[in-house]
Amino acid sequence: MDAVWQSQRNELFARWQEIYDLTGIAALLSWDQSTYMPVGGGSVRGRQLALLERLAHERRTDPAIGRLLDVLQPYAESLPADADDVAQLRVMRKIYERSTRVPAAFAAEFAEHTANSYMAWVAARPQDDFAAVRPYLQKTLDMSRQLAEFFPGCAHIADPLIDFADEGMTVATIRPLFEELRQALTPLVATISQRPPVNDSFLHRHYPKLQQIAFGEPIIRAFGYDFARGRQDETHHPFMTKFAHDDVRITTRIDEYDLGNALFSTMHEAGHALYEQGIDAAYASTALDTGASAGVHESQSRLWENIVGRSRRFWEHYFPALQAAFPEQLADVDVEAFHRAVNRVKPSLIRTEADEVTYNLHVIIRFGLELELLEGKLTIDDLPEAWRARYHENLGVYAPDDRDGVMQDVHWFGGPIGGSFQGYALGNIMASQFYAAALAAHPEIEDEIGAGRFATLHTWLRENIYCHGARYTAQELLTRVTGQPLTLAPYLTYLRTKYSAIYGPL
Amino acid sequence: MDAVWQSQRNELFARWQEIYDLTGIAALLSWDQSTYMPVGGGSVRGRQLALLERLAHERRTDPAIGRLLDVLQPYAESLPADADDVAQLRVMRKIYERSTRVPAAFAAEFAEHTANSYMAWVAARPQDDFAAVRPYLQKTLDMSRQLAEFFPGCAHIADPLIDFADEGMTVATIRPLFEELRQALTPLVATISQRPPVNDSFLHRHYPKLQQIAFGEPIIRAFGYDFARGRQDETHHPFMTKFAHDDVRITTRIDEYDLGNALFSTMHEAGHALYEQGIDAAYASTALDTGASAGVHESQSRLWENIVGRSRRFWEHYFPALQAAFPEQLADVDVEAFHRAVNRVKPSLIRTEADEVTYNLHVIIRFGLELELLEGKLTIDDLPEAWRARYHENLGVYAPDDRDGVMQDVHWFGGPIGGSFQGYALGNIMASQFYAAALAAHPEIEDEIGAGRFATLHTWLRENIYCHGARYTAQELLTRVTGQPLTLAPYLTYLRTKYSAIYGPL
Repeated sequence: MDAVWQSQRNELFARWQEIYDLTGIAALLSWDQSTYMPVGGGSVRGRQLALLERLAHERRTDPAIGRLLDVLQPYAESLPADADDVAQLRVMRKIYERSTRVPAAFAAEFAEHTANSYMAWVAARPQDDFAAVRPYLQKTLDMSRQLAEFFPGCAHIADPLIDFADEGMTVATIRPLFEELRQALTPLVATISQRPPVNDSFLHRHYPKLQQIAFGEPIIRAFGYDFARGRQDETHHPFMTKFAHDDVRITTRIDEYDLGNALFSTMHEAGHALYEQGIDAAYASTALDTGASAGVHESQSRLWENIVGRSRRFWEHYFPALQAAFPEQLADVDVEAFHRAVNRVKPSLIRTEADEVTYNLHVIIRFGLELELLEGKLTIDDLPEAWRARYHENLGVYAPDDRDGVMQDVHWFGGPIGGSFQGYALGNIMASQFYAAALAAHPEIEDEIGAGRFATLHTWLRENIYCHGARYTAQELLTRVTGQPLTLAPYLTYLRTKYSAIYGPL
Repeated sequence: MDAVWQSQRNELFARWQEIYDLTGIAALLSWDQSTYMPVGGGSVRGRQLALLERLAHERRTDPAIGRLLDVLQPYAESLPADADDVAQLRVMRKIYERSTRVPAAFAAEFAEHTANSYMAWVAARPQDDFAAVRPYLQKTLDMSRQLAEFFPGCAHIADPLIDFADEGMTVATIRPLFEELRQALTPLVATISQRPPVNDSFLHRHYPKLQQIAFGEPIIRAFGYDFARGRQDETHHPFMTKFAHDDVRITTRIDEYDLGNALFSTMHEAGHALYEQGIDAAYASTALDTGASAGVHESQSRLWENIVGRSRRFWEHYFPALQAAFPEQLADVDVEAFHRAVNRVKPSLIRTEADEVTYNLHVIIRFGLELELLEGKLTIDDLPEAWRARYHENLGVYAPDDRDGVMQDVHWFGGPIGGSFQGYALGNIMASQFYAAALAAHPEIEDEIGAGRFATLHTWLRENIYCHGARYTAQELLTRVTGQPLTLAPYLTYLRTKYSAIYGPL
């Protein structure tokens, strides 16, 4: 490499490493806030986080970054198209340009508003007090529209917000996909509702906390989660977080009267963590040391949680151990009954507790409401009733309050309205598409799962998806790994096959 | 206040708050490193801490701080001498001038060297490998001398290093004080050695961890430690740390075969924490929101650990509860035997495990070695043997290796040589001086301790010491609170009285 390029490249990467470290430090502060922080710490924690965000934003938008990217443009053009540095420069430029579009004063105001809005939601939700969050939500909507307008020339006002999370996706691509999905799911849900219901009452017996943890941790260790580069703690809402390439932590939530809660949230967050832990070590502390998109990330959490962790083969191996861990609670249960119970389909109000068949309808409802709000077709005042109506129409259930209705998810109270939810459904679709490709390459994977072994699957995912980090967009990655762009077919096949085995032919 | 002064004052305090927050954030990173961080996190943690230190140093030495301090000088002069803002400006100026004396390049190099030196020590100490740390220690000595030379005009090369930790103290004041102390302690140790030995073998029975924690936490809660503004976790070396005014955490170390270890380290760190938690809320996030000096801080940890926690009265109240918690282990022990055991005097190699009588000799040895190293009278090569010789001479024990000799403490491997140890002995002396003043004001304190009540003592300490934070120097505080400057008499009286009751007239 040209010596001038080399020194400019070094400077750019050193500057980016500071942004990476400030982000990792902020993640540690947030993790502590959710895990161990005493209540007193709360008064200053928001200010500490705001300081770190301001320092990171200053660095992301430093004109020196723009100058270095420009100087290095000929260097990038001198490289083969698939060189690492081409991707590095592309991703840094994307973040630089996105960040500089947003005025610093707006970014600061939005960060502060988001923090206030979140605190209002935390206080109001248990009281079912929509009136208390209404003005915050109105301001969030106004600011989300402003934020979108900093990126003119998009076909739809939601497009830039979607692009933040799922680069390359637009309303024009997602809307028809989600409509097709909805039309496939609705009759499936209706048919299953006519079949004899599945009994899952034994999942709600008393399962002591420590035994639940002791059962779950060896499973994710077997998946490949590296506890030397992470750990698991308890929080109210489970999440995965990353402080550095070799410090990727997860949290879980334990309900002593709901065996599935911790078990599947542990697998879910471990799926996210396997992705981050599997990124090429050469990308450590760079712009590529993160996942490709919200959708691809969710595809991995859902793959491990559902396609692996809720499969019949998986429980053929693990059920005896589970029964040994909880001999009294599961004395009258066999593997078939257990597998059916953890896959029971039942329309419900809560997204995060939804089964695989109804889950996407929750996402599609939210995505549609976001678009209508941004388009100005729906007002915040009308939102609670619109929420109820959509649930009734799509899932046949009716939220008795706003707590489990419009105030259910943190997203609209912790970020913009727009772009927050599509990744959950995209992830489900991608999970099946990726998994089908893995199976095509290694048909032995299912037998291995049945033997409690996951190395072939994990290695395939790491070599084809994880190692690349943010190097490819979701569509590039899908095409590269599966031979085609995002496609619904493998997902619908997966659902029909799996649930036919449980509920009879669908 | 003049409107111009007001706006300048606001700017100065806002700038200082950033320094305060960066320091608090760094403390959280260090706490996590010692408590929960997986090994993988270590590779980047030092870099993250170095970044925060650099950002804080840039802000502490920003010429704008000097300009604001100058502009506000007439404001300070317009105030009564005891106004809060006079102290605020004095302390900020002290830190600004101290920080700007040290070139940024030197500060960065020293921070990096310290991190490397610490890691070398962590690896070498278990192997008893002095040769591995020798070059680091040599560089530390060289850099400590350089650091001191940035502050010319001192009577002794160690004076600026001592001043960092114990402002106002010098070699000229400490050396004769420590010599007087040594001459009082040496015969005391010799006399006690002739008396029948105290049995403490029952402290080394098996005391399960969870019961130890369950016994210790209510004690520090009774002292006044506020768990809503703090928490206790386990670490290899116990410490107190502060992330913000309302987030002051402690750690403890639990040895299931040494009951005293966790018990007294918990009280010790709680003493430090009571100080920080007791600072006036009006000083939150300012330069005064910290202790007065290393010595004053240590006086509070030692007061709660030793004067309260190792007193006969204390155990008259708590021993029945301890016996109930460990009925088998303490079946054959009574309160008198227990009190004697936790106060057994026995010359030993390890400072942190030393009894109250021999403890200061450990400190005096280190202080003397630091001076000789800085003066050039002792070389690093000769240090291990000098250490052994001093221990033999002063304590009659001989370190069989360097692990428990010269490599015993982290201090010289985590900071400069010079100024690191005097605070421990100063703290013991001050503790008795403060406690005597508290007793003079409230003679009922000892009866209250005998009833497991600490409110009068805690309130007196808070109102006379804690609330002031860094407002006064140690000498100012001592004079203000006890009517006289630092004086040895109350401490020697305390030791003679206490140990005469255990070992017979001394």
